[in-house]
Amino acid sequence: MKIRVYATPREVTDEDLRDSTAVVVDVLRASSTIITALENGAREVVPVATPAEAAELASKAGRANTLLGGEREGKMIEGFDLGNSPLEYASDKVSGRSIIFASTNGAPAIVRSKQAEDAIIASFNNHSAAVRFLRSAGRDVSIVCSGRYGKFSLEDFVYAGKLVEGLNGNGGGEVSNDGSLAALELFHRYRSQLPELVRSCLHGRYLAQIGFDSDLNYCARVDSHDSVPILIEGKLRLAKSNGKSR
Amino acid sequence: MKIRVYATPREVTDEDLRDSTAVVVDVLRASSTIITALENGAREVVPVATPAEAAELASKAGRANTLLGGEREGKMIEGFDLGNSPLEYASDKVSGRSIIFASTNGAPAIVRSKQAEDAIIASFNNHSAAVRFLRSAGRDVSIVCSGRYGKFSLEDFVYAGKLVEGLNGNGGGEVSNDGSLAALELFHRYRSQLPELVRSCLHGRYLAQIGFDSDLNYCARVDSHDSVPILIEGKLRLAKSNGKSR
Repeated sequence: MKIRVYATPREVTDEDLRDSTAVVVDVLRASSTIITALENGAREVVPVATPAEAAELASKAGRANTLLGGEREGKMIEGFDLGNSPLEYASDKVSGRSIIFASTNGAPAIVRSKQAEDAIIASFNNHSAAVRFLRSAGRDVSIVCSGRYGKFSLEDFVYAGKLVEGLNGNGGGEVSNDGSLAALELFHRYRSQLPELVRSCLHGRYLAQIGFDSDLNYCARVDSHDSVPILIEGKLRLAKSNGKSR
Repeated sequence: MKIRVYATPREVTDEDLRDSTAVVVDVLRASSTIITALENGAREVVPVATPAEAAELASKAGRANTLLGGEREGKMIEGFDLGNSPLEYASDKVSGRSIIFASTNGAPAIVRSKQAEDAIIASFNNHSAAVRFLRSAGRDVSIVCSGRYGKFSLEDFVYAGKLVEGLNGNGGGEVSNDGSLAALELFHRYRSQLPELVRSCLHGRYLAQIGFDSDLNYCARVDSHDSVPILIEGKLRLAKSNGKSR
């Protein structure tokens, strides 16, 4: 099992994704938001690249059972129902609903990863479940860091490193590009300081500034959730029993 | 002085470069090749994005005083005079000549950096000279890692970290994006193992395989050279006396 890490979605080609399981990582905050929404009973999360696309899809689907979620500059988009704070995606709001989701970095990264054989969502929150899924799937793994406005983001890369470590040990994983080696080394540097890391990276500081301080602790928590969102025909749902999939 | 590191040229926007000094880093091997060519008396190195562009420019310039240099897949391009091994750029070959240069990763990164106020070339080879230049210029610094086929490369990022450290200490530099923080941490990890790093990264292993093992030691050497190539009107020449430039 080859493990490759891509520091931003722009690094990834269709060829890189082919025959592999893509893991989309957006620690702050789309990974956590999607995991939370689905665990709280959302029927599906449909990632789209832009707010305009989200609005168009919602007008086709009808608004009865559909919610619009996502952000621009960290804040809820005008006319949307939900932002990108996982804390907003409580059961009473999302249960049974389809959520069309347009975050700035994570959503386009997920759309980008459709070319892979499978695509799942991971972060600190569902780490062990993601490792079990990937070991069981047994394919090569392409870890796609969402980054921030197309640029390297530390929190995504460090989580990618944790995932490399999780697969590398007894999982038979093979560190197969410079990205996976660098991510692993950076994870070793930060492993005992994950909450501090999430507060010191550029996006964490920005989110704290605009009032989402409590999201930071939430997103840095390891294994607070035990399920894996998987993309099937453009829609994210929870994978059926870890590792056995679909 | 703000210091930002970009893991690949694709991360960089014109806005990022504006009013800053760009530092293009291609440890294996374009930085070393360019530094060596200019120290060995080449009149100028003219970076271009593609071999076709190089051939076109050479046919306009006439071949009397012009050499074509560069590589594809690490090897000299058909019809070219020189590859991308710094060891080929000896005085008897390059002295007084203009070199049109088309390497796969470094040359396009340099072309990309034209939007900056200034653009220079750095690597382990001319580290102290680059630090002096940047301190003296006093502008914000945008360190552009050339990467490998558009992807993260460990050796460039680690050198970027060394440069961050050099500017950060008494240089008044400020670590200003996640890239510069991550690069600095990775440099700390590898600082005592630079030759091993250059041998263990993906491109180093590839170059050793295709017969360029001796380039690896050359490119990992710290301060073997004491000058700074600077881009002026599309041509690289040595900056006049370190830090005072032009």
